[in-house]
Amino acid sequence: MTAAPETPVVAVIGGGQLARMTAQAALALGVPLRLLAEAEGVSAAQVIPDTVVGDYRDLEVLRRVTQGCAVVTFDHEHVPTEHLQALAAEGTPCRPGPAALVHAQDKGVMRERLVALGVPCPAHRIVSTPEQVAAFAGQTGGPVVLKTTRGGYDGKGVWVVRDPADSSTALQAAERTGARVLAEELVDFRRELAALVVRSPSGQVAAYPVVESIQRDGICEEVLAPAPDLPDDLALEAQQIAMRIAAELDVTGVLAVELFETRDGRVLVNELAMRPHNTGHWSIDGAVTSQFENHLRAVLDLPLGSPQARAPWTVMVNVLGGSHGALSEELYAGYRHVLARDPRLKVHLYGKTVKPGRKVGHVTAYGADLDDVRERARHAAAWFRGDLGEESE
Amino acid sequence: MTAAPETPVVAVIGGGQLARMTAQAALALGVPLRLLAEAEGVSAAQVIPDTVVGDYRDLEVLRRVTQGCAVVTFDHEHVPTEHLQALAAEGTPCRPGPAALVHAQDKGVMRERLVALGVPCPAHRIVSTPEQVAAFAGQTGGPVVLKTTRGGYDGKGVWVVRDPADSSTALQAAERTGARVLAEELVDFRRELAALVVRSPSGQVAAYPVVESIQRDGICEEVLAPAPDLPDDLALEAQQIAMRIAAELDVTGVLAVELFETRDGRVLVNELAMRPHNTGHWSIDGAVTSQFENHLRAVLDLPLGSPQARAPWTVMVNVLGGSHGALSEELYAGYRHVLARDPRLKVHLYGKTVKPGRKVGHVTAYGADLDDVRERARHAAAWFRGDLGEESE
Repeated sequence: MTAAPETPVVAVIGGGQLARMTAQAALALGVPLRLLAEAEGVSAAQVIPDTVVGDYRDLEVLRRVTQGCAVVTFDHEHVPTEHLQALAAEGTPCRPGPAALVHAQDKGVMRERLVALGVPCPAHRIVSTPEQVAAFAGQTGGPVVLKTTRGGYDGKGVWVVRDPADSSTALQAAERTGARVLAEELVDFRRELAALVVRSPSGQVAAYPVVESIQRDGICEEVLAPAPDLPDDLALEAQQIAMRIAAELDVTGVLAVELFETRDGRVLVNELAMRPHNTGHWSIDGAVTSQFENHLRAVLDLPLGSPQARAPWTVMVNVLGGSHGALSEELYAGYRHVLARDPRLKVHLYGKTVKPGRKVGHVTAYGADLDDVRERARHAAAWFRGDLGEESE
Repeated sequence: MTAAPETPVVAVIGGGQLARMTAQAALALGVPLRLLAEAEGVSAAQVIPDTVVGDYRDLEVLRRVTQGCAVVTFDHEHVPTEHLQALAAEGTPCRPGPAALVHAQDKGVMRERLVALGVPCPAHRIVSTPEQVAAFAGQTGGPVVLKTTRGGYDGKGVWVVRDPADSSTALQAAERTGARVLAEELVDFRRELAALVVRSPSGQVAAYPVVESIQRDGICEEVLAPAPDLPDDLALEAQQIAMRIAAELDVTGVLAVELFETRDGRVLVNELAMRPHNTGHWSIDGAVTSQFENHLRAVLDLPLGSPQARAPWTVMVNVLGGSHGALSEELYAGYRHVLARDPRLKVHLYGKTVKPGRKVGHVTAYGADLDDVRERARHAAAWFRGDLGEESE
């Protein structure tokens, strides 16, 4: 595959939907991608011709994939730090680099660094015994959230413990994987927010509007952009926290900061992600420049595009695999209804086989009336999932 | 490559930028494409993994490519009619079908049919001798445009003849290719317009806003959406002409109708195209649903998306290969200036090697002020072309 001469090739590690949507931005910019996919035919491998199938935990595989590429970036945060250090030492820039990425890979490292920076976080401590959990619970005076410091996602590796005696499951699970366990106070939050910024190696930053993220069972289900009724000063604080973390940690590309908005009007940092993030999918159809295009621009150290919203309200709802009904088996069949009902809706399906609870796509609606926009997006996602029967309009 | 089960595969014949931009829409919809490319590494082959390289004039190649595909569509209009008839007879729907497509392949057939439908056209007749050209010129009383009925594009196969004695070049060129020659009056037009509609097999039609198209040397250079100061009744007439042609010719997918707006306030049909068209590229960033997504929806007989514009003004300017300067050799180098100058600009590069005058990309700007939007888009295209030197801001 030859593109116009002198155009850099970007290596992407991981063949999920984030790489797939990055490919959409790369196609427009005329930037060729080389993909390392975990298996034949995965989501991004369906749309990137220059795909190698292999194991991202194997340094030799990483070396082969990145050969001749100008830069390496990621669909996920699971590539071992030492491999990234080796690639960087051999002259292949990793963006984000290993020293930044470790803060998205290890929640213990992340908390320690954020506290050192003075960034507001929930009360927390590293624990390894039920007694330490009990002592921490005694200090915070409420239920405790236990998280494995590494390897958790979408609600996996997270336990809410109301009785410290129940903490052994989490502690044992962590012990088996070699991860530490982080105990955090269960924050009595009003809602969850996300502040997404994109930063280039030269230090330019684009800050997207702060969004509200609605989770169910630990999985992001719905994103409202911007977060409704968020006071300006709190929105600004969330953006400033994200920009500060991006700069201090020397992040390149997307940094998504998930936050709790507390009932007493503060924001606390929950999680960090250093890759295009589910809370930024709205930007494909809802912003001047999508998070995927800006991520790609950033890893190439090109000037960033405007993160401004194009409509007063944009709502993204994830399409999750359903557990019942014919529609849950066959997403494509949902198009006939969904597209006919709403000619302004934008649908993104990821080419994935449907499994219950799996993220297989998302829908985006935008417009001037938030209630209307939400109803349109939620209806479509529910239809694809098979949650709406014939009684529906 | 396996997508979710039961999702139809769409075969696309021709590996140019139209197929490439169709791939962008297909990626979002989760629809797999199979491409027939004329050579390795051409524009669309860079972004469609399931690519076969072969000759679209070979029926066996067409049969192999379309095997297992739900439907066939096209990047260009050069596939022989008899091959399309054979594929259709063997059960592979061609969209548009051969009976419709011939009107975009043969200007003689097109003119005959439009006249029969009562659609306003320039005065014309088929000619084969300088004497017939002279007789036609005598009737219309002005210069004559000679066009080969088949195979012309982007100003190729078109001659403006002020003295009928000069018509032998055109007549001989046509004779060599076996095409007939169509003589048309040189219309004294105010400007060129395009009315783009998308029609599905079930007869649903989406009509995009009528645009102004600015040509230089027979190549579309700039598109203004919507056409500025176009009277409502003339815009409606242009859309009705396009919808009528689409219905009468049973077009599936995009029908682009290029029109002359005459100085006395009429519209005359100039050309037809039955594929995504350069005058519709603005819709990727400027409309709720792009022409590429709607073309794909139409060929799959899915409900069409809204063709409504998202901004008051959208301007698309083609990036043409320049004939001088370093930038003309290396498009990518233009990004640093173009993206920094205008964070709201959208750039689309097609992965093509630069040759003087070749369409290698396009840029799109949108906003509330037409002059500002035009200036932004034109500046960027000129910069990529290498027409702006260091004196530029």
